[in-house]
Amino acid sequence: MAKSNGKSRKIYMDYAASAEPNPGSIHELGLKAKKQLDGARRSVADVLGARPAEIIFTSGGTESNNMAIQGAVLGAKLPKLPHIVTTNIEHPSVLETCKMLEKRKLAEISIVPVESNGIVDPKKIKKEIKKNTVLVSVMYANNEIGTIQPIKEIAKKIRHYRKRRDLTPLPLSLARRGVGERCFPLFHTDAVQAVNYLDLNVERLGVDMLSLSGSKLKGAGRVGVLYKRKSVPLAPIFSGGDQEGALRPGTENLPAILKFFTALVKAHKNKEKEAKRLKKIQEYFFYKLEHTDILKDVGMFLNGDRQERLPNNVSITLPNIPSDLLVIELSARGIMASAKSACKAGDGKSSHVIKAINPKIKDTDGSLRFSLGRKTTKRDIDETVKALSQILKKLKKWYTPTPILKLEK
Amino acid sequence: MAKSNGKSRKIYMDYAASAEPNPGSIHELGLKAKKQLDGARRSVADVLGARPAEIIFTSGGTESNNMAIQGAVLGAKLPKLPHIVTTNIEHPSVLETCKMLEKRKLAEISIVPVESNGIVDPKKIKKEIKKNTVLVSVMYANNEIGTIQPIKEIAKKIRHYRKRRDLTPLPLSLARRGVGERCFPLFHTDAVQAVNYLDLNVERLGVDMLSLSGSKLKGAGRVGVLYKRKSVPLAPIFSGGDQEGALRPGTENLPAILKFFTALVKAHKNKEKEAKRLKKIQEYFFYKLEHTDILKDVGMFLNGDRQERLPNNVSITLPNIPSDLLVIELSARGIMASAKSACKAGDGKSSHVIKAINPKIKDTDGSLRFSLGRKTTKRDIDETVKALSQILKKLKKWYTPTPILKLEK
Repeated sequence: MAKSNGKSRKIYMDYAASAEPNPGSIHELGLKAKKQLDGARRSVADVLGARPAEIIFTSGGTESNNMAIQGAVLGAKLPKLPHIVTTNIEHPSVLETCKMLEKRKLAEISIVPVESNGIVDPKKIKKEIKKNTVLVSVMYANNEIGTIQPIKEIAKKIRHYRKRRDLTPLPLSLARRGVGERCFPLFHTDAVQAVNYLDLNVERLGVDMLSLSGSKLKGAGRVGVLYKRKSVPLAPIFSGGDQEGALRPGTENLPAILKFFTALVKAHKNKEKEAKRLKKIQEYFFYKLEHTDILKDVGMFLNGDRQERLPNNVSITLPNIPSDLLVIELSARGIMASAKSACKAGDGKSSHVIKAINPKIKDTDGSLRFSLGRKTTKRDIDETVKALSQILKKLKKWYTPTPILKLEK
Repeated sequence: MAKSNGKSRKIYMDYAASAEPNPGSIHELGLKAKKQLDGARRSVADVLGARPAEIIFTSGGTESNNMAIQGAVLGAKLPKLPHIVTTNIEHPSVLETCKMLEKRKLAEISIVPVESNGIVDPKKIKKEIKKNTVLVSVMYANNEIGTIQPIKEIAKKIRHYRKRRDLTPLPLSLARRGVGERCFPLFHTDAVQAVNYLDLNVERLGVDMLSLSGSKLKGAGRVGVLYKRKSVPLAPIFSGGDQEGALRPGTENLPAILKFFTALVKAHKNKEKEAKRLKKIQEYFFYKLEHTDILKDVGMFLNGDRQERLPNNVSITLPNIPSDLLVIELSARGIMASAKSACKAGDGKSSHVIKAINPKIKDTDGSLRFSLGRKTTKRDIDETVKALSQILKKLKKWYTPTPILKLEK
């Protein structure tokens, strides 16, 4: 034993594996890292009501969504071109991925429009499902307008379809892997925005795949998770090592994973209480917005359903005032809000989500998303609404609003 | 301005973008993050002798390699099936990715075997290049046996080929993007293991793409980099937001990127000195191994070229003793070494690299990789060789080595 002053000393001669110990190594420090990784995986599985082997750690929500969608299409191996059903308010990492697959002639897609309240009708999803549909992907809660989608109802309709579908025999390659004839369509949900406030139990939700991201969890590392039901036939989008069931090669980001599971467990524990607290602040925010004269004057309205939305989301439209200008004016007053998804910020166009719920919207109509968090107080709301009033008073000189034209919702 | 006690107070209402400020947001905290990201990108570009826009941040080396290889194949849009030339000692994230593309009928591949010293002959690479070759991918330094590949010589041969190739007109889609007729084959190098010790200047190396990983840099975050020369037509493998020139959507991992560039700049500054210091320790290690009787008795030999190797790599074969047993015995004595790439550890088989340089090797012949780092001292070497002697004395009772059969190299 390598000793130094009577105490056992470790000699690290595995710098090429990783400058820090790596769960893929079989020496003592590697095994210790592996044990930590296994513990984190178990905790995440517990929160989701899943099995540890069904948890895949990724680099983030974008990768999780790409893995679910590209992986389902590449892994399906159907005799026909795979078909995907999704909605028109998905995050770009879902919607653009579907479009990319279509462009590359690897899949055909059906995009179901949501209703004017920003919620999709499960019956319309069901109507689009056909024999070659391998995947339905519907987000749990929208990132811009916060609307919560009826995941359980959609899951029920999919289960119903699977049970009644014509039993066209699957290729032997799938049958061998124990994939039942009735596994398609798979049901994936992007739960990135739901993580802090909604039930994540995959059994209760009835989903086959679910994406999470550490970036929406306070104190979590920059990692993502894809829950994948054991029987789901997914093809990897990366090749390399055998990590994460060979679905996600590359050294696991252990430090971030450890932070992630700690933050997830904490959020899970505080979920109900925090949702209740924010719901009250949200109601207060709505009340203040609706009772401020200048906001009424410019024709402000709420984007998305007032009830079926995340308790931390307040999204409004202010006709005739560009979003980016509003964000910058608010920022100058110390208030950090956003116009739309940060992934698409600053391009000067209306977001695809706002357009989806309000086809009459123009690029010059501004939308603002205020997303609240654990530090948000009523006082913040007062100051925000006050700042917004000041900005509108200032901007009124330049932008002549069309007189209280409430856009049809 | 939101104020509190006369001091300006920030109200963060962008939790849905990210629990922490995000370089994609256009408000003040978002812009600050963007500025930090730009600074990091500039520093990385400086170390590589590249332009900032040519630096793509990824989740790690595995993703960088997948992006380069899959992206080149998908982005080439040639009338014929794209062809890749690579070697038989690449990291799995290169070799397995090439094989996956072949299996999915998206590319054909030629795998050039290295010589018995673990170094590829540039002439053999050149011989494999043909009209539809879109990519040559050769690693800079091997992760298991540390051998350094003749990147500059290969680059020269590729340039020569490009200049003399038949001028078959490229599809308009490429010509429009300003891709010259002579851009193929592209030349990619996986420089993950080279980062601490070798010259990374892309102009001097003559490469079009180069992969790096934070996991091999002390104190760097878990991120990767792909350098991509501006004119290289790469298709994205992920879809989503517009980050990283739309080639790598997803919120940038800013905390890790900041750690990465700091560590890279530091390693770059200390490169020569540290390489010189380790070269001496490595020589001492070789000497000790070669002058220990029991090691000679069991037929130990060095894997890979003795001179043209990373200064931190000592890789040996000990015939008839399984690798994993050696790693575990060393670990029990406080010494963390590895048998092969951690990405493939623990599966009980000889590595593809060891087999590539020594086709006669059996799965029961053990290989050990000692990779040295900034904390390694001569004393560590003394203790390692001593521990190795003890282990061999112990194991001799169970494993009867074939009498000093030096395997043909």
